[in-house]
Amino acid sequence: MDAPTLPLTPTSPTWVAVALADLDTVHQDHLHCERKAAQSALSLVRSYPDRLDLVLAVSRLAHEETAHVVQVTQLLGRRGVAPTMDFGDEYAAQLYSHVRRGEPARLLDRLLVFALIEARSAERLALLADAIPDEATAILYRGLATAEDRHRDTFLELAAAAAPTEWQARLAVLARAEADVVARLPVRARIH
Amino acid sequence: MDAPTLPLTPTSPTWVAVALADLDTVHQDHLHCERKAAQSALSLVRSYPDRLDLVLAVSRLAHEETAHVVQVTQLLGRRGVAPTMDFGDEYAAQLYSHVRRGEPARLLDRLLVFALIEARSAERLALLADAIPDEATAILYRGLATAEDRHRDTFLELAAAAAPTEWQARLAVLARAEADVVARLPVRARIH
Repeated sequence: MDAPTLPLTPTSPTWVAVALADLDTVHQDHLHCERKAAQSALSLVRSYPDRLDLVLAVSRLAHEETAHVVQVTQLLGRRGVAPTMDFGDEYAAQLYSHVRRGEPARLLDRLLVFALIEARSAERLALLADAIPDEATAILYRGLATAEDRHRDTFLELAAAAAPTEWQARLAVLARAEADVVARLPVRARIH
Repeated sequence: MDAPTLPLTPTSPTWVAVALADLDTVHQDHLHCERKAAQSALSLVRSYPDRLDLVLAVSRLAHEETAHVVQVTQLLGRRGVAPTMDFGDEYAAQLYSHVRRGEPARLLDRLLVFALIEARSAERLALLADAIPDEATAILYRGLATAEDRHRDTFLELAAAAAPTEWQARLAVLARAEADVVARLPVRARIH
């Protein structure tokens, strides 16, 4: 399929300023975002093992996300900052509330919500990469943003394969919901 | 520390015969074993993020386990066999029942139980590698057995670091419990 378009509402410049002012907290939050991304991908293996192409795609994705967990942990170590407990993620929780019960709607919605989370993460990691003064950290964040963009496309391709006639309309609905969630949440030193 | 010794009761030769007679079921079960190993490692990142060395070690371990998920999925694909839903794992469930509540005992027990599961998995994957007629599959299983041996040592090293004076006595207790679980469970075409 053609490269899918997923127009997000742009993140407020205020977010970049708030994040830059408390980068350690952003990194601490980011560690758990990467962990949860790996766990979400593995949850699809648990739920849909009979879909061999999906299992291969999302287990490769989990393999990359676990490398990101290592990289963000190393970043915290270099900064002399200990990781913290997960702050929680109201953004993701609100998005998951839109996942319909019952198959095949549930599979489609999980794939599209994961695509939206990857897309928003990629957008914000790229904004950070442009703004972070430390060159090594900026390079790391640019690489992670590129990976999350690929993961967004993986989830969109899986959604298109799972529901060829429905996925684009449903994506439009969920993308509007995502924009509402972002608009309503307070701006904080978190990835989302 | 010295390489830890972890003497397991040997798996019955009957298990090898039963597993060889229904290898596809063993591979289908194995896929979920690898997935759950990755998830277990990530669960430690969630629970103990302040332990930077532990987070690094277990997120690297999860990175390897997700590669194993990919490899076992590819193996099933080559055999023209679809993965199935998880059959469940009574062996692991019974071992987890020995994990004490309350820290720091809970951390030590989780690390030791994970070490025992890796050790038993390594033993059985090596037995399969010696018995499987297909050369490519045997090579894959030997490589996976070697990795699980390393993972066993990772968990034992983390246990020794977490509870230097207690871990060996507790390991002896849990290893006896593991032997009892293995002795009581029926012999089936499963990894455990």
